[in-house]
Amino acid sequence: MILTVTLNAALDITYRVPRLHPHTTHRVTEVAERPGGKGLNVARVLAALGHRTVATGFAGGGTGEALRALLAQETAVTDALVPVGGATRRTVAVVDAGTGDTTQLNEPGPTVSPTEWAAFLGTYRELLGEARAVALCGSLPPGVPVDVYARLTRAAHAAGVPVLLDTSGEPLRRGLAARPDLAKPNADELAALTGSTEPLRAARDARRRGAHAVAASLGADGMLAVTADGAWQATPPRRFAGNPTGAGDSAVAGLLSGLVEELPWPDRLCRAVALSAATVRAPAAGEFDATTYQELLPHVVVTDRPAVA
Amino acid sequence: MILTVTLNAALDITYRVPRLHPHTTHRVTEVAERPGGKGLNVARVLAALGHRTVATGFAGGGTGEALRALLAQETAVTDALVPVGGATRRTVAVVDAGTGDTTQLNEPGPTVSPTEWAAFLGTYRELLGEARAVALCGSLPPGVPVDVYARLTRAAHAAGVPVLLDTSGEPLRRGLAARPDLAKPNADELAALTGSTEPLRAARDARRRGAHAVAASLGADGMLAVTADGAWQATPPRRFAGNPTGAGDSAVAGLLSGLVEELPWPDRLCRAVALSAATVRAPAAGEFDATTYQELLPHVVVTDRPAVA
Repeated sequence: MILTVTLNAALDITYRVPRLHPHTTHRVTEVAERPGGKGLNVARVLAALGHRTVATGFAGGGTGEALRALLAQETAVTDALVPVGGATRRTVAVVDAGTGDTTQLNEPGPTVSPTEWAAFLGTYRELLGEARAVALCGSLPPGVPVDVYARLTRAAHAAGVPVLLDTSGEPLRRGLAARPDLAKPNADELAALTGSTEPLRAARDARRRGAHAVAASLGADGMLAVTADGAWQATPPRRFAGNPTGAGDSAVAGLLSGLVEELPWPDRLCRAVALSAATVRAPAAGEFDATTYQELLPHVVVTDRPAVA
Repeated sequence: MILTVTLNAALDITYRVPRLHPHTTHRVTEVAERPGGKGLNVARVLAALGHRTVATGFAGGGTGEALRALLAQETAVTDALVPVGGATRRTVAVVDAGTGDTTQLNEPGPTVSPTEWAAFLGTYRELLGEARAVALCGSLPPGVPVDVYARLTRAAHAAGVPVLLDTSGEPLRRGLAARPDLAKPNADELAALTGSTEPLRAARDARRRGAHAVAASLGADGMLAVTADGAWQATPPRRFAGNPTGAGDSAVAGLLSGLVEELPWPDRLCRAVALSAATVRAPAAGEFDATTYQELLPHVVVTDRPAVA
């Protein structure tokens, strides 16, 4: 199975309002809820691709219960979330029906106690015994050590399990030091890490900081990978209008399934880019449109790039 | 005991953000939750004033459970909410820490089935047997008949229980036809009902539409009552800066406790105005500051107004 870790899982709530006017009162016309947090998004896409997928991390409180109920109802993902005393955070996306723009409000998440953290590590090590790959995804809740992804990477490597790391800021910086097999930053995260806004240069730099391979998601420009075997850029056949929420998480699922299936790198990138575009095109945020995915896959263009300067 | 009815109870969530920028992503720095909906706000103030108070209405889903847990933990209010299959709505207040302004997002609430509605009516009639007064408060969830407050008023009168009605729009218009003992609109609701923005004229008009008495909350201008015995305006000694959320609900609690205690009208208005100002001054939205209330009470100024033109 493939394991995904979501330390700061969320109950994602989407509100539709006719028009967002700050400092006034709004009647919400539509409410939608889904299990959220990057690792859970990755897990549901992996499961939809037919991979046996287990999700761990933390869940607690009424919001945690709601998240777990939705996960059980709506996905084939196996729930191995560890109970936590605090309540799972909510994220609220307010969609302005007039402009289509989204205003996002993200709660910080529950504080994790040392005991809860120890319980998680026990579960994680046990799950690694069956895992073919692990994805470490997203932001950290309060109370979790900032070098957590370095620790989880080392534990995975000790168990012989390859690691994909998808996070940002200090947790990314610290995580890279433990040499994950693949890091998946987006262009902004890559620039914040390396100080360079030129993706190829920045991806090479990120590799030097410790990742065996770096796959950078570049929005409409597709995905750029710099690896030990070469560098490639995969580009979708055209631009897609839609909601980019979860597009990066779908790309992670594409890369991870490609790794487990031992696909050549260009094929992994095609899958990631097609899944990403199919997510932008889907009516619900974070879902992917299976037909769009199948149609796009043969039309993604891969070009060689120089792996070193 | 005093009974309050909240057909569209809410889990009130307050988010504090450093600055609200529409169409961007925000990290929420503080999250607070409380039981919400006008009738529940009224109930907690009545309980804080020392009145035995029972709250009924509907609650359901994980949000309903969270609301009931908070009600039990934080108040002396007796919970007689009727279970409903749908989930209790959330309201989200986003407070901009820079300006202090609030952007409010209100979910519509669960759809109430005819069976659930019938179950509520049974509970309501039973509770009326012990009630000295009832407050019918707030908006209606989907599925509840729009003339509900007229029906509930008639049932209360059949049981000899006086009724305070605090709602707006069509439910207010229809409710007045059943001749509640007191209606408590604010200036906007009164203007929407009568077409007049002149409060005294509008309050007299609202009385002619069926209420035995009308007490209109006028924000910083205090409260204006038009009754069979006369008309009065009560004004706070000065303006108060703060959060007006729940100020109207505290005024309802003041009026209702005054009715039950058979206070003269001017004393009821003083209590309502002092409670209202003490709510604006309280640090948490919808709470009232007991010290401010006691200090203000002797300083509210009441003037006679002509009850008829």
